[in-house]
Amino acid sequence: MTRISIIGMGLIGTSLGLALRSADSTSPLAQPIITGYDENRQATSAARARLAIDREARSLAEASADAEIVVIATPVQAIRALFARLAPLLPAGTIVTDTASTKTEVCSWAADLLPAGVDFIGGHPMAGKEQTGPAAADPALFQGAIYCLIPASSARQQAVDMVEAMVQAVGASPYYIAPEEHDAYVAGISHLPFVLASTLVEATSRSPAWPEMAPLAASGFRDVSRLASGDPTMYRDICMTNRLALRRWIDESIAVLAELREHLEQERAEQLYAHFAHARQVHQAWLQSTPNLRPGEAQFQHMPRVEHRSWLDLFWPRGRKKKE
Amino acid sequence: MTRISIIGMGLIGTSLGLALRSADSTSPLAQPIITGYDENRQATSAARARLAIDREARSLAEASADAEIVVIATPVQAIRALFARLAPLLPAGTIVTDTASTKTEVCSWAADLLPAGVDFIGGHPMAGKEQTGPAAADPALFQGAIYCLIPASSARQQAVDMVEAMVQAVGASPYYIAPEEHDAYVAGISHLPFVLASTLVEATSRSPAWPEMAPLAASGFRDVSRLASGDPTMYRDICMTNRLALRRWIDESIAVLAELREHLEQERAEQLYAHFAHARQVHQAWLQSTPNLRPGEAQFQHMPRVEHRSWLDLFWPRGRKKKE
Repeated sequence: MTRISIIGMGLIGTSLGLALRSADSTSPLAQPIITGYDENRQATSAARARLAIDREARSLAEASADAEIVVIATPVQAIRALFARLAPLLPAGTIVTDTASTKTEVCSWAADLLPAGVDFIGGHPMAGKEQTGPAAADPALFQGAIYCLIPASSARQQAVDMVEAMVQAVGASPYYIAPEEHDAYVAGISHLPFVLASTLVEATSRSPAWPEMAPLAASGFRDVSRLASGDPTMYRDICMTNRLALRRWIDESIAVLAELREHLEQERAEQLYAHFAHARQVHQAWLQSTPNLRPGEAQFQHMPRVEHRSWLDLFWPRGRKKKE
Repeated sequence: MTRISIIGMGLIGTSLGLALRSADSTSPLAQPIITGYDENRQATSAARARLAIDREARSLAEASADAEIVVIATPVQAIRALFARLAPLLPAGTIVTDTASTKTEVCSWAADLLPAGVDFIGGHPMAGKEQTGPAAADPALFQGAIYCLIPASSARQQAVDMVEAMVQAVGASPYYIAPEEHDAYVAGISHLPFVLASTLVEATSRSPAWPEMAPLAASGFRDVSRLASGDPTMYRDICMTNRLALRRWIDESIAVLAELREHLEQERAEQLYAHFAHARQVHQAWLQSTPNLRPGEAQFQHMPRVEHRSWLDLFWPRGRKKKE
């Protein structure tokens, strides 16, 4: 029976506990013993009450004492200090992983702060919802989701295999990726959607007409704005640890909006049509190639390892001139 | 038994037929006789096959011959020509309404082109989905939706009452509004969400890394991008007939994005938090005050008539200086 400690009893940590406890009996991690720890004792108790964990640790030392795998599921900004506090507590051979939404800084903190004998494998489950805390936890949250894994270059294969088994035990598909690429990609497909959702809410609600407009807003507004209810602390931290990549995507978005504005100003109906038709075509192709987006939807069939490339290529597409 | 003709057998026209045919027996419009017409004969036949209409008209003249209410449910750009063709066919006393997403131009076309004895009441049901055509029609599409009504100043009260009864018969709530206000409001809460959804798709998919990013995109991307699959012809027409209002909202959005970009560049974590926290607060207040967004969700309780104001006020909030 594998001993797993989860630090941080929020939505992700508690969901992970629930999912691991209901893992298939054929998994190498079947019937693990799960210890939970959160600075907020009430969160730990709530997770225990939901049977997401077997034991409540009262301290970080107690949480890490005999764990084979330590999963850090706290806000990203808390991870650096946690690594420093955990470092003297972790025996050699302990496996450490995290669930933060940005990876470049986390991986460099791990390299700087964790002891040499500890294996670090960065992780990021591509799953979530707007609600936070253990009450919102869901054992099916990771079912069919992509789960990014970024092993430290020093991590033993055996440790990578254990974390991969954990990912599979919760129903997710492992996806190996370099930290800089991860951050550039998720800035576009995860953080930018949040930024655009809150931009919609801000742009409309700053108008003095908002109280009269609001009742007219229907399902279109609802869907595009949904992420605006996300936890502002979490998103502040995500954005602060991924500033450069997110700024580039914001610039790309402003450029697209300026293009549309120009089409409207110049009354270019054909270009407007071509623009919308292209977005529709790309969107439909994406929907078809990505059937699995929520628990219960069809599974991804096969997830190849991503071929490594420089993440700067993202922003300087072939054929476009770099600024001098 | 009221005779209603619906011109345009797309999603909205066919759904309206289905909803009217299943209207409550206490409605003044219970058991109407519904005639359908579409330039595309196959669409009319499909609507008939779904029992959305009682009769298929072969021509505009046949469709309008003995109708008490003519509902125009075509794309907005087709309406001007339709008014011109309908004008000589409509007996005095006929009631004309439409379902287009923009109202200023439609109302001025009606004033210019429809005969004096015809009562025009502009309409816009705040309901829809990405799919188009009679196959996607749904009798519950309007259940609990807001349905904007813009009576021409010359319209008789009796005609307004008839259209209001039709709106109630399909389960929607009438909402009286001036055309310029309607267009400024829906540009923000309906057309801007579409523009931001397609902007998300364009900004990300133009990157050469898109094929590698796409599989990582999860439910956040899915929701924010959903509207990007909307009909490009319809959105081109909506945007072209509502250029000024939409440009202003695009400008507001660019300003909000530039503000966020600046916070990131200057590493202003607190301002970033305040920004996201404000958007969240507004969004949650909106969700709570607007429980009804889809068929089956709770009903709006009461929809007061909107107090009229200049729509230019929208963009020059009190306390902000107008440009000279």
